[in-house]
Amino acid sequence: MRTAETPTETPTELLVARPKRADARRNYEKVLAAAREAFAEGGEATSLEEIARRAGVGIGTLYRHFPTRQALLEAVYVNEVEEVARSAEELDGGDPWESLNAWFERVISYFATKRALWAELLDYLAPDAPLFMTCRASLFAAGEPLLRRAQEAGVVRPDVEFWDVMHMVGGIAKIPTNDPKQVERILRVALDGLRYHAES
Amino acid sequence: MRTAETPTETPTELLVARPKRADARRNYEKVLAAAREAFAEGGEATSLEEIARRAGVGIGTLYRHFPTRQALLEAVYVNEVEEVARSAEELDGGDPWESLNAWFERVISYFATKRALWAELLDYLAPDAPLFMTCRASLFAAGEPLLRRAQEAGVVRPDVEFWDVMHMVGGIAKIPTNDPKQVERILRVALDGLRYHAES
Repeated sequence: MRTAETPTETPTELLVARPKRADARRNYEKVLAAAREAFAEGGEATSLEEIARRAGVGIGTLYRHFPTRQALLEAVYVNEVEEVARSAEELDGGDPWESLNAWFERVISYFATKRALWAELLDYLAPDAPLFMTCRASLFAAGEPLLRRAQEAGVVRPDVEFWDVMHMVGGIAKIPTNDPKQVERILRVALDGLRYHAES
Repeated sequence: MRTAETPTETPTELLVARPKRADARRNYEKVLAAAREAFAEGGEATSLEEIARRAGVGIGTLYRHFPTRQALLEAVYVNEVEEVARSAEELDGGDPWESLNAWFERVISYFATKRALWAELLDYLAPDAPLFMTCRASLFAAGEPLLRRAQEAGVVRPDVEFWDVMHMVGGIAKIPTNDPKQVERILRVALDGLRYHAES
């Protein structure tokens, strides 16, 4: 686990250039948040002008931080991966089942962001581009210990692997429904499948 | 349950015109099987000529049974729904959990067929077209009693509905992997989630 004493950069932090000055960093974060929100609403095609407007910054400021549309899309994607990874760190140490369950509940919204960005990112990058491979490794490094800990504690069946569960959650994230409660319900059932054998 | 004494047509049987004469019916079935196979292999764009060739019939024979590409696509889709529905009838009466589980294992390949046809069918039909609504009702009529029976037997949790499980299985059918064993493994985990509460 990283502490304040070891501020080394994570692999994903090396993927995008972030401003160091506090005021520049604030604008950067505002643009990132506005872009993420716009893409999550299904507006993959949202223009950079519209994103600048939503963020409350000038288009010049946006371009200073994200010289191309690709740069912005990559930054939103990497940022989401980092937040998911960070949430695993925060959950580390809690009840093994509750931590695992809570992490995969968070992962559902990662898949929603990924889905919104994926098609356009693939215009710029190959599916096995270093950016994706680094993000993949980062998700594994974050979530796999939570799964292993739950398996070692005997609360999760031993016959599943990390990417099985990721795929399962990713599949559920794609369910064509407008009812978030239904997705929650289905995710709960599927994740409960992880602890089925533990009780038999 | 239908018996030999009640040979009335099911709602889905009314959706497509099938030849009554045995030899014509054989050719009809051959084309249908070849089309289904071609589409399942990912060849949504397979030409009618290629399908006739695969079926070992002349193109004239194909057109006699399926005057348009739409007619063939609809017939493949409806046929798949009927087979899934029939498999539920065959499973009816067995062990409640095993029957339900086996049915949803069959449903996975229904989703693969649906996926292969869906985009092109939507060029011809609205998502709420009578054909789709009838198929939907037929799947419900086939599978819902299996779920209800397993719930009444106490082997499946009471807090799930038929379409929840269909959506869950449909989501898993979309997992981007080339490993069928992985899909099987994930489906098993997710379906086991159905009986989690039953044991707690």
